[in-house]
Amino acid sequence: MSAPAASPPVTDPTLARLSLNQRTTASWTLREAIDGCRAAGLSSIGVWREQLAEAGLDQAVGWLADAGLRVSTLCRGGFFTASDPAAIEAAHAENVRALDEAAAIGAATLCLVPGGLPSGDRDLPAARRRAAEAIERLVPHARRVGVSLGIEPMNPIYAADRGVVSTLGQALDIAEPYAVEEVGVVLDTFHVWWDPDLEAQIARAGRRIHSYQVCDWITPLPADTLLARGMMGDGHIDFATIGGWVRDAGYTGDIEVEIFNADVWATPGDEVLATLSARYRELIQPYA
Amino acid sequence: MSAPAASPPVTDPTLARLSLNQRTTASWTLREAIDGCRAAGLSSIGVWREQLAEAGLDQAVGWLADAGLRVSTLCRGGFFTASDPAAIEAAHAENVRALDEAAAIGAATLCLVPGGLPSGDRDLPAARRRAAEAIERLVPHARRVGVSLGIEPMNPIYAADRGVVSTLGQALDIAEPYAVEEVGVVLDTFHVWWDPDLEAQIARAGRRIHSYQVCDWITPLPADTLLARGMMGDGHIDFATIGGWVRDAGYTGDIEVEIFNADVWATPGDEVLATLSARYRELIQPYA
Repeated sequence: MSAPAASPPVTDPTLARLSLNQRTTASWTLREAIDGCRAAGLSSIGVWREQLAEAGLDQAVGWLADAGLRVSTLCRGGFFTASDPAAIEAAHAENVRALDEAAAIGAATLCLVPGGLPSGDRDLPAARRRAAEAIERLVPHARRVGVSLGIEPMNPIYAADRGVVSTLGQALDIAEPYAVEEVGVVLDTFHVWWDPDLEAQIARAGRRIHSYQVCDWITPLPADTLLARGMMGDGHIDFATIGGWVRDAGYTGDIEVEIFNADVWATPGDEVLATLSARYRELIQPYA
Repeated sequence: MSAPAASPPVTDPTLARLSLNQRTTASWTLREAIDGCRAAGLSSIGVWREQLAEAGLDQAVGWLADAGLRVSTLCRGGFFTASDPAAIEAAHAENVRALDEAAAIGAATLCLVPGGLPSGDRDLPAARRRAAEAIERLVPHARRVGVSLGIEPMNPIYAADRGVVSTLGQALDIAEPYAVEEVGVVLDTFHVWWDPDLEAQIARAGRRIHSYQVCDWITPLPADTLLARGMMGDGHIDFATIGGWVRDAGYTGDIEVEIFNADVWATPGDEVLATLSARYRELIQPYA
């Protein structure tokens, strides 16, 4: 938390592709997260819209530029499975704003969390169709501002209430009608590690992998499923194998660590960064 | 809890295919569950090995015959993903015993819960291969005693610690080398409802559906993921659509209600049976 904004960042070559997704240090403001990344030798950050709004867009743009940090993704757009027309329009407008913000801070990709079933609605195929339609409608604006749409397939644990796109294959089915640089996928190990078809789908994805995010699947699963993710190495995911598949698919971008976990959030941010950097060097970087 | 064992069961034609999986009334002994089914007008039961052992096999055989109940399944075999040879042998022997018990009580199918990753082991594909090998080895004994093996694909939420077979398609890949009446699948809505490929895989399954089990996916998910299942109608699953697919696949067997849920377990069994019978009439039977 100490590096002044004007000094050159002290980057570590083994961490060259490591990006701190802000959600991992949820208690930090954007300013604190930027300083934390610099102090820890990181050169990339995944920014969240909530903290971006707190900081103010213009100020954030200046901070990020001064710090010399890449912005790996902006999190997050999406939540466009509503069925009533007014809510559909509101979600579209919100995603347009998110794309504009992503362009302003230089994020290559806007992460799209599709959203769940509307209250009382049990028609999962229809919600999936609405997600695909909403993405189709966003493509022209995304193209205009030069930000890619990254569809994030989500673990089936969230199919009802958060993300109706449940597999990488399904996300690619939605993405493939569009240019590879315009619509891709956000691949998060927590969401996809269990998929028996994962190797084939990662190979199919190729350059459509617009973001690779890592965290672990831990058991017993914490009581709040939204905060159920673990630090790499604390759970059951084989990062070497999955990381190798992602590498072989041609992915050379940043690798974000995104951990939603109450214990991680209760730990001082610089300690979290020290731990995740060590785990990244041991479990992720050698296979990337 | 009142019908004496010797009286003819009072069955209800709208409940003709409804089976009480004993796990739904976890506090009941087998004797109580048999009496509960008769009092509620059910003619089928899914038996658990723990309660069967308590009752004693010979006594249970007599009770079930006297009550005139069909045994839709015996739950459960499986848990054969261990990697060390002694544990593999022990699991095989235990599954042979389970098949013998299933034959003795007249259960058509032994439900197989594959098991999770061994402690500290992150090789999911290898665990899946061991599950397939263990099933291959069980087939001759299953054939000999006339009980089918029902592979239960499990929601990915359990991939690490309970069931490495995560999709219906994957279960069918394991089953298809064998005769359709010898190795099939146990289709539980809780485990498969989210699958984008579900309609196609149910059609592919056809007569390999050896058991159809129903319960709901509720949110927020209860803190203990093993007790996270809801009563049909309390959650997000579209039973009409999935039930129609199962019907169209040719399934005419019993439909088990299997609910692991602390609140359900704290409710008197006869109240649980009254509720599930009403929900079955409303949400399941019309589409079966």
